[in-house]
Amino acid sequence: MRNVFGNIFTLTTFGESHGEAVGGVVDGMPAGIDLDMDFIQHELDRRKPGQSRITTQRNEADRVQLLSGVFEGKTTGTPIGFVVKNTNQHSNDYDNMRQLFRPSHADYTYYNKYGVRDHRGGGRSSARVTISRCVGGALAKLALRPLGISIQAYVSQVGNIAIDRDYRRYDLAKAEDNIVRCPDPAKAKEMEELIMKVKAEGDTIGGVVTCVIKGCPVGLGEPEFDKLHAQLGAAMLGINAVKGFEYGDGFDIVEHRGSEVNDIFLPESHQQDSDTNAKQLEKHAANTPTNHSGGIQGGISNGQDIYFRVAFKPVATLLRPQPTIDLNGNATTIDARGRHDPCVTPRAVPIVEDMAAMVILDNWLLNKTVRM
Amino acid sequence: MRNVFGNIFTLTTFGESHGEAVGGVVDGMPAGIDLDMDFIQHELDRRKPGQSRITTQRNEADRVQLLSGVFEGKTTGTPIGFVVKNTNQHSNDYDNMRQLFRPSHADYTYYNKYGVRDHRGGGRSSARVTISRCVGGALAKLALRPLGISIQAYVSQVGNIAIDRDYRRYDLAKAEDNIVRCPDPAKAKEMEELIMKVKAEGDTIGGVVTCVIKGCPVGLGEPEFDKLHAQLGAAMLGINAVKGFEYGDGFDIVEHRGSEVNDIFLPESHQQDSDTNAKQLEKHAANTPTNHSGGIQGGISNGQDIYFRVAFKPVATLLRPQPTIDLNGNATTIDARGRHDPCVTPRAVPIVEDMAAMVILDNWLLNKTVRM
Amino acid sequence: MRNVFGNIFTLTTFGESHGEAVGGVVDGMPAGIDLDMDFIQHELDRRKPGQSRITTQRNEADRVQLLSGVFEGKTTGTPIGFVVKNTNQHSNDYDNMRQLFRPSHADYTYYNKYGVRDHRGGGRSSARVTISRCVGGALAKLALRPLGISIQAYVSQVGNIAIDRDYRRYDLAKAEDNIVRCPDPAKAKEMEELIMKVKAEGDTIGGVVTCVIKGCPVGLGEPEFDKLHAQLGAAMLGINAVKGFEYGDGFDIVEHRGSEVNDIFLPESHQQDSDTNAKQLEKHAANTPTNHSGGIQGGISNGQDIYFRVAFKPVATLLRPQPTIDLNGNATTIDARGRHDPCVTPRAVPIVEDMAAMVILDNWLLNKTVRM
Amino acid sequence: MRNVFGNIFTLTTFGESHGEAVGGVVDGMPAGIDLDMDFIQHELDRRKPGQSRITTQRNEADRVQLLSGVFEGKTTGTPIGFVVKNTNQHSNDYDNMRQLFRPSHADYTYYNKYGVRDHRGGGRSSARVTISRCVGGALAKLALRPLGISIQAYVSQVGNIAIDRDYRRYDLAKAEDNIVRCPDPAKAKEMEELIMKVKAEGDTIGGVVTCVIKGCPVGLGEPEFDKLHAQLGAAMLGINAVKGFEYGDGFDIVEHRGSEVNDIFLPESHQQDSDTNAKQLEKHAANTPTNHSGGIQGGISNGQDIYFRVAFKPVATLLRPQPTIDLNGNATTIDARGRHDPCVTPRAVPIVEDMAAMVILDNWLLNKTVRM
Repeated sequence: MRNVFGNIFTLTTFGESHGEAVGGVVDGMPAGIDLDMDFIQHELDRRKPGQSRITTQRNEADRVQLLSGVFEGKTTGTPIGFVVKNTNQHSNDYDNMRQLFRPSHADYTYYNKYGVRDHRGGGRSSARVTISRCVGGALAKLALRPLGISIQAYVSQVGNIAIDRDYRRYDLAKAEDNIVRCPDPAKAKEMEELIMKVKAEGDTIGGVVTCVIKGCPVGLGEPEFDKLHAQLGAAMLGINAVKGFEYGDGFDIVEHRGSEVNDIFLPESHQQDSDTNAKQLEKHAANTPTNHSGGIQGGISNGQDIYFRVAFKPVATLLRPQPTIDLNGNATTIDARGRHDPCVTPRAVPIVEDMAAMVILDNWLLNKTVRM
Repeated sequence: MRNVFGNIFTLTTFGESHGEAVGGVVDGMPAGIDLDMDFIQHELDRRKPGQSRITTQRNEADRVQLLSGVFEGKTTGTPIGFVVKNTNQHSNDYDNMRQLFRPSHADYTYYNKYGVRDHRGGGRSSARVTISRCVGGALAKLALRPLGISIQAYVSQVGNIAIDRDYRRYDLAKAEDNIVRCPDPAKAKEMEELIMKVKAEGDTIGGVVTCVIKGCPVGLGEPEFDKLHAQLGAAMLGINAVKGFEYGDGFDIVEHRGSEVNDIFLPESHQQDSDTNAKQLEKHAANTPTNHSGGIQGGISNGQDIYFRVAFKPVATLLRPQPTIDLNGNATTIDARGRHDPCVTPRAVPIVEDMAAMVILDNWLLNKTVRM
Repeated sequence: MRNVFGNIFTLTTFGESHGEAVGGVVDGMPAGIDLDMDFIQHELDRRKPGQSRITTQRNEADRVQLLSGVFEGKTTGTPIGFVVKNTNQHSNDYDNMRQLFRPSHADYTYYNKYGVRDHRGGGRSSARVTISRCVGGALAKLALRPLGISIQAYVSQVGNIAIDRDYRRYDLAKAEDNIVRCPDPAKAKEMEELIMKVKAEGDTIGGVVTCVIKGCPVGLGEPEFDKLHAQLGAAMLGINAVKGFEYGDGFDIVEHRGSEVNDIFLPESHQQDSDTNAKQLEKHAANTPTNHSGGIQGGISNGQDIYFRVAFKPVATLLRPQPTIDLNGNATTIDARGRHDPCVTPRAVPIVEDMAAMVILDNWLLNKTVRM
Repeated sequence: MRNVFGNIFTLTTFGESHGEAVGGVVDGMPAGIDLDMDFIQHELDRRKPGQSRITTQRNEADRVQLLSGVFEGKTTGTPIGFVVKNTNQHSNDYDNMRQLFRPSHADYTYYNKYGVRDHRGGGRSSARVTISRCVGGALAKLALRPLGISIQAYVSQVGNIAIDRDYRRYDLAKAEDNIVRCPDPAKAKEMEELIMKVKAEGDTIGGVVTCVIKGCPVGLGEPEFDKLHAQLGAAMLGINAVKGFEYGDGFDIVEHRGSEVNDIFLPESHQQDSDTNAKQLEKHAANTPTNHSGGIQGGISNGQDIYFRVAFKPVATLLRPQPTIDLNGNATTIDARGRHDPCVTPRAVPIVEDMAAMVILDNWLLNKTVRM
């Protein structure tokens, strides 16, 4: 319930920023999947700190070690335990924070909830703990790969610099070609400059990550409470610093009329499941020219591309002094010497994908139980 | 997992638009709560059809019957089963839909997922099934009432007519004084006119519901995957026709810098839990003048007001003909003779509150287990 | 968690002995299953009171009404809500129990746990609430029927009258031919006489129900905590009045050596899954002549018959006066005028089967998710 | 669901006999509990191999490392990840088993369920994985300690040598004074001799572990499906080699009449919750002289001692040749060169306690949510 994600394919995580290790357990991983350790490590490398000049300089190798659930290169269907050691903690960077509550951080709320907190680097509330999500997501991607389901996220906005909302206008593969992870090279350059400027001022800036899921078959999602988009939304809102989630036309749709945004079927498209999945998806895409729905209707995937947007706030830790209070309510000043990102979105891209991958795999597996 | 909501306080629902009844089971309702049947029925009346000229004319009494879990006016801690009979179905209104897929509805996805569907009124995908959520939410509100936690939602936008985002500028109690459920009477009038105009054209329009939770103590929410806002987001995205969720500054925050949107603590505010809850909340509100965070930090409530916004798409069923296809992919025309709302937001207001009430109570109960 | 049973196929129940109704929700019922209402009602009739002279004379029709999840004779994959009205309550039979704690009943524990209790007929702790389990189990049996999985329970002991432990010595179908539900007609007669004698003395007597599952494929069960027998055991121990559970050789095995009770494979039996399920099971049975394991090894079904035994205590309510105390701890006498069974096992037979059917279906569905 | 135990306090485990490590995650551990690492290690030492001449000679230090969830000697309420390295695997002892199915083991069932298996030492089905349960149980015991709840298990039978069923006749603390873990020194000696004799013959033998829980308050347990004894039963049946579970009078009760086994309250005992817990328990014990119910009525603890018995089969791995088959169904002989226990019960004692401790803590926490 608390530190577990998913229903059939589940990820349980543990770890704090400055403890021994972060890690977790993936349970429900299907048996017989080829294990591609290079891919898993690559997924971790995409989120690791210190990868470019616009990310935090905390520099950790973040090598993942799988401890179980794999035998001779294949998954066995038993749980996969894993750890990533914390190796580059500068815990005494945080000594001055033991008595403080940082503004817009989880310090005050953790302290009141639990009566005790590990103040070092934010403890459990640190974005470092998202490492475990990357491992879970990488494993999910390995299981989805043979199905032809692909998940691609990218940065679509930093501060007031945004690209077009229509992802079909971009070659999404290009997102990984620049350090901002934006598929529009010119805009990526602008975003990078903005981030560097903000950083130079000791400040931080927000952004938006867009995610596109292609090849998802019709039928995923539980249509009452656990609608597919409700699960995706919960997954995204569970990522540190996220303030909003929308899918399909999202908030923009409220100004439109039904006659403008209904996705009209064209004839000869939807013979039931007589065709192969791939062929059926192709037909659907061809015969429903619009996709205001974002690939989900009534909480169930409809075979079109699923896409959604995730809003990230500016990182709360500034690299300049801020006024705050201590545990006794007295005024003091905080001067964060820890290493932090000026903008969280570039490193959030793999995490968004990984959470989405786990949601899709979990629902794909659950959907097998709908009929005998 | 599928038709269950919550962890400690749970709501399991059943029912289709044109079946015998809709209903459910509330499990984990605390023992010893005074049962106020008038309040529960009133909550249902707020969402029932036919309550004004801007809602559907399907006219059902929607009387709820509690079947268990209550003894001599108090809850007993055992599950509360309940049913609401379907009495005014015009099922043959839907005969022409048996062979059709309505655009942007769940017909196509249900049919492919389950291989069978109850086409009458959308079956399980009908908004009628949200009745069960109102019962669950009303019970949750009864349990929260003695704690001084109140939840108030209202319509903040219809089409392009929006009120100010700052809920503190309005007397929210006024929302219930008009049929749109908007706390700004002048804007409510404009919204009502827009809805009537859209309805006259056989069309539909989207809108936004804002929700404010007051009196929530510090400490609710599970800070990893089940952050309080992730739970609220999932709850809202699980409501029919919802396309987006944001809390606090939401999507707007992405254009801002950390220095602009951090919520700064003022001195002498946050002595630990020595004070009463009410006094502590008061101090917090007094000493953290801004609330960009929306009352939640690190996934845990911080004692300030919690607020969020929910985007609803225009209802997919138009009251005029639309082209579509039948089960064989052939072109045809759909002419919805069913009774539908031109704008879903006024009747969605209680549902938003009720889902929020269940989330808050569930977390309040769970939070008791954090310490011995 | 509390009133929910199962993971994929779930049953949520509600109801008290003297409330409006008992009922529940079956969620995760596979779509497209033919609904056989006569069978469901027949399953209820097998447990209903007043069916013979050795059962309680509370006489209720116990007609089940399905409220959802079914369309034109087939299940739709949506939740099936159901109710059975309470029609023959004699609540004032229980007025004298409002102030009492009945010995070895749940009165004292409920009162202390919840601070309030519905004293009428034991409220939620009444065996009447097992009606909901019969409905869930009947639905599970309908889904299992096309798979060739059958579940048969019977009374194997009443008091000190026991039949042979080896179920293969009996024609189990004969169990339904007598009111005790024992497949040995001579012993059934003896058991019946014992029950009548005990009843005449105003007393009650315990017994054992044995259950055999045939046709279960290899592979069901989650081998760590949720071993198939652990799930079956929990299901059985959750039935009112059960004091013990054992499977395979059970407690008797502790006196034996490994060399005596290992189930030895004979050659040419276990080619992997090349054969049909039926053929594979047949081979397994032919080639592993013993079955001390009870059809489960390492928590996973092995294709042989699964069998287990369930111990029921004598009903705590005697039909003669007993000393007890009231809510203030004062001595008093209880004289149960309610209608009760002198021996619970004959009516427990369908409940044992129904719980087992739900466990098997739940695991059958879950097992589909083990491989892609 | 699969490798998770518990609801509020949960243990998720991973690991195989010959993988890198076994370990797990404890989630829901209450915050602020003093961490006693010596106690945790001591609990592991009680189950470790090689501790006496009647246990397997696999000799591993089994040092546990906690990786998170603890700060400055106290639990923080965040998940506790832990690992125990596998250091003394003799994997090539098992090379001959790659192509074999061992009789009455999980080899055949795992292979058919997952299509792949780690044959080394039984992989995930090895009793080695119970290490993780000892860590979870030790943490639960630390949380229960200040409440005065104690849990003591012991060996009550080996083969046909049994001690009296009434645990009150023994000083249970003495169980830890001998290598069999039986509180009757003379019988312990006999049991030890029997085990040595069986071992010398290359055979194995079964046994019974009895467990007693003292100081448990009234009110624990969910009275419908998750009755306290159903949870305890599932926990015990989930331990490797267990074939049966009974509580209170267990299977023996079936031969008795209600008038013989009802637990009669004596006057002046049960004033509601006005007294302290300790005083209330004392009164209850004094005023209900018998305890056939085993401390649980209607699925809820009643304040008396809870006791139950667990049947263990003889270990399936013999230390002498057995006939069996290979993956192709051909006859072959198995000669287990691994290191195994001739009788599993002495080392099972801490595991029984640890599972029970987790059940009690989980229910104690959940019970806090029954009233506001």
